[in-house]
Amino acid sequence: MKVYFGASISLDRSLLPNYQEIVANLKKLGHQVLSEYVVDPSIKPGVGLTPRDLFARETKTIDQADVMVAEVTAPSWGTAFLIEYALNHGKPVLALYYKEAAMPLPMMIEGHPELYVAHYTKGNIRTVLKKNLDYFASMNHRKGKLIVIDGTDGSGKGTQTELLLKYLDEHKKKNKYIDFPRYYTSFHGQMVGRYLKGEFGGLNSASPYLTSLFYAMDR
Amino acid sequence: MKVYFGASISLDRSLLPNYQEIVANLKKLGHQVLSEYVVDPSIKPGVGLTPRDLFARETKTIDQADVMVAEVTAPSWGTAFLIEYALNHGKPVLALYYKEAAMPLPMMIEGHPELYVAHYTKGNIRTVLKKNLDYFASMNHRKGKLIVIDGTDGSGKGTQTELLLKYLDEHKKKNKYIDFPRYYTSFHGQMVGRYLKGEFGGLNSASPYLTSLFYAMDR
Repeated sequence: MKVYFGASISLDRSLLPNYQEIVANLKKLGHQVLSEYVVDPSIKPGVGLTPRDLFARETKTIDQADVMVAEVTAPSWGTAFLIEYALNHGKPVLALYYKEAAMPLPMMIEGHPELYVAHYTKGNIRTVLKKNLDYFASMNHRKGKLIVIDGTDGSGKGTQTELLLKYLDEHKKKNKYIDFPRYYTSFHGQMVGRYLKGEFGGLNSASPYLTSLFYAMDR
Repeated sequence: MKVYFGASISLDRSLLPNYQEIVANLKKLGHQVLSEYVVDPSIKPGVGLTPRDLFARETKTIDQADVMVAEVTAPSWGTAFLIEYALNHGKPVLALYYKEAAMPLPMMIEGHPELYVAHYTKGNIRTVLKKNLDYFASMNHRKGKLIVIDGTDGSGKGTQTELLLKYLDEHKKKNKYIDFPRYYTSFHGQMVGRYLKGEFGGLNSASPYLTSLFYAMDR
């Protein structure tokens, strides 16, 4: 997966060796780290960039990531803002807290309703990353696929759909089936039904500009 | 206005006298501070609350606030998360940075595209608060009012609208006038026009279930 790694850059660099270890392990696990500059020991935050441009660069990088991994032991305004940005854009965020640190885990991180918080040591960081990123990858798969079967009357849509549903059930793939128009369950689908029965002036006299709206609004 | 005040509680309390000064000044300026416990010297964060409940209590308090004022000189995960929460819920946020602090203003605060950042000293905090909160109050007013003039044909909608617009202009009140159907500027408004000209089967033969959709979608 593509990972945005975030950690304190300007306030507190004492845990830089941990950050480097995390990034190295992410790469060993086959992930791509889009923000490797965060662990560059010589980094000076945003050299040559205005603060606004720096903020924009980070959010654009997150746009390209699948997930965010944040080291949250040392405080960082930027990391906190970017965590929220990632969550608002549908990316899961793993917050890593170093168990051997002097600072306690802040309650507002522990209590954040959308963060995945994990405590790590130098010995188990790889396992912690693998477990959580595997879980994130499985969430991605859980997004599901949308399969559309369309065609003219009598072309076999129903037959193909039945075969597909049977296949999915036999292979224990969860599925949900919807067909349109929903003559019984949606207001606009009911209108399609009444139109097809000729209530609104017959198939040839009612304007398609009007009747097509019923179909569109049933979606 | 109702103000949510946020600042570092567990990580760094060295600026507590500043926080107290800010809250005292907000109150002197006539505002209500919903989170005064933040400046209680004996506060222990979330005593008796789970971390999740603490987080929920703070976000619910922000729901009731008009604006957020955050002291951002000392780092705070909680304050950062709550700043984003407030912004996501349409509350303007003033981020206050203490000019005489040893820590520099982080670039990611300065570069945050939605934050109002102000530098303050002990001498000017009241002026800084007044200026920014007055501005926030004027933003609230700038939300504007929606005036709807409706009635049957020939009832005088046009006459009343002209009188109103003339009044607003004479009193230098900014205004924007829209009338429906928008026969020329919207796709569905054009459809209303074609319907009224009889293109879709005449006023008495086309079903109102169909033709009313054009009006609805022009809004």
